[in-house]
Amino acid sequence: MFRIGIFDSGVGGLTVQRAVLDALPGADTLYLGDTARVPYGTKSAETVTQYSLRNARFLARHGIDVLVVACNTASAVALPALRTELTVPVIGVVDPGARVAARASRTGRIGVIGTQGTVASGAYQAAIRRERPGAEVIARACPLFVPLAEEGWTDPADEVVRGVARRYLSPLAGAGIDTLVLGCTHYPLLAAAIGAELPGVTLVDSAAAVAAEVRATFGGGAGPADHRFFVTDAPEKFLAVAGRFLGRPVTAADHVDV
Amino acid sequence: MFRIGIFDSGVGGLTVQRAVLDALPGADTLYLGDTARVPYGTKSAETVTQYSLRNARFLARHGIDVLVVACNTASAVALPALRTELTVPVIGVVDPGARVAARASRTGRIGVIGTQGTVASGAYQAAIRRERPGAEVIARACPLFVPLAEEGWTDPADEVVRGVARRYLSPLAGAGIDTLVLGCTHYPLLAAAIGAELPGVTLVDSAAAVAAEVRATFGGGAGPADHRFFVTDAPEKFLAVAGRFLGRPVTAADHVDV
Repeated sequence: MFRIGIFDSGVGGLTVQRAVLDALPGADTLYLGDTARVPYGTKSAETVTQYSLRNARFLARHGIDVLVVACNTASAVALPALRTELTVPVIGVVDPGARVAARASRTGRIGVIGTQGTVASGAYQAAIRRERPGAEVIARACPLFVPLAEEGWTDPADEVVRGVARRYLSPLAGAGIDTLVLGCTHYPLLAAAIGAELPGVTLVDSAAAVAAEVRATFGGGAGPADHRFFVTDAPEKFLAVAGRFLGRPVTAADHVDV
Repeated sequence: MFRIGIFDSGVGGLTVQRAVLDALPGADTLYLGDTARVPYGTKSAETVTQYSLRNARFLARHGIDVLVVACNTASAVALPALRTELTVPVIGVVDPGARVAARASRTGRIGVIGTQGTVASGAYQAAIRRERPGAEVIARACPLFVPLAEEGWTDPADEVVRGVARRYLSPLAGAGIDTLVLGCTHYPLLAAAIGAELPGVTLVDSAAAVAAEVRATFGGGAGPADHRFFVTDAPEKFLAVAGRFLGRPVTAADHVDV
């Protein structure tokens, strides 16, 4: 049975797992949310790399055929270290998302939004320019978007949501982008509000892009699949919101120390 | 020389250290910000207690005469474990803040705002009622306030700041409180915006209350003092903002693993 390991700093990576399950319904999955150390997006590349290695070792001990790094920040800074450490393939969200954006853009003016760590790493900017030399990439960190999504304040008609989205996105609108990468697992929950500030702009969700890449590389699998969830903080809070992110019920998660 | 150990989940506890330095200019201080694991306010009591014990052991190894727990969430959930572990006195921010609020209120209707962990613990509510039986305490978690303060979006005339403050605080205004505890180290930076939504309400900052308690217990000290700073994530980001929170220049911090 084909088994996919997925980790994220917390619950947001379940949006990536959701896309993976849609694309590969027959694969077993192990999901690890590092909820005791979340968020990664405000922390240094060194610290995020250390946490990512611990997460990956935990999943590798359970026997996985591929590791999907669902966290954009970890994908942006820790892939080289993870690939050195692991013997199985490691797929991050940055390259698949960058590839889709580079192909979707007509004008070559592409926006990227993400955490401070993701934007500061320059990983999306470099990946887009590798795929499409000459592309103009405008990147912007949007720290308020994650807590807004976790509060459930996502309605585009909400004046607070609209005010925050306008402040972050108006420089991107002014730069005339035609494509925007949602470079953080929480941002798809705010897609309607983001789209309302950027009419006509194509929004790229890396989750679907990475799922397509896993499917293209490993095939679809078949048969009933088993899904297990692990978290580093107490499971209750994770379980309370996990279903909303995964789009399927999540009834159990094990508390582990990695 | 009298030496005070102070820890917080991150940089916010420097507002407590600032008050301590104002009250006890002659004391040496060791400050530890657990910036690799920040925030504590969204995490379980068990995880916050484990992190607090590690922080306290690190400071205790450096020889301190008293431990000040600057983090409201840690003060709310971890004091019993810390007092069992340490041989020196342990002072949190909850009891001093609750005491000042209980005395400042004329009507006995007192509001408390803090992180999800602080509010869920019920620690402020219990401490206020111990001090003033019959007090009516209305508590509310305000998760967006920390990222607003860290973005520097604190101007009460800012429509986003006003919108967020109104949403969180209007139930407290409607309940007719006359006193509000700012139960998180970041919230004093938003005091003007908070006050604008609650005209006539007395705002209680636990930092000043805990500093007064340390001074009353240990005296003022004298002579030139030495101040050292430790962080668990890379120091650069801490150093970039520490001066704003401390009100004095912070030029060096050591990266440590606790």
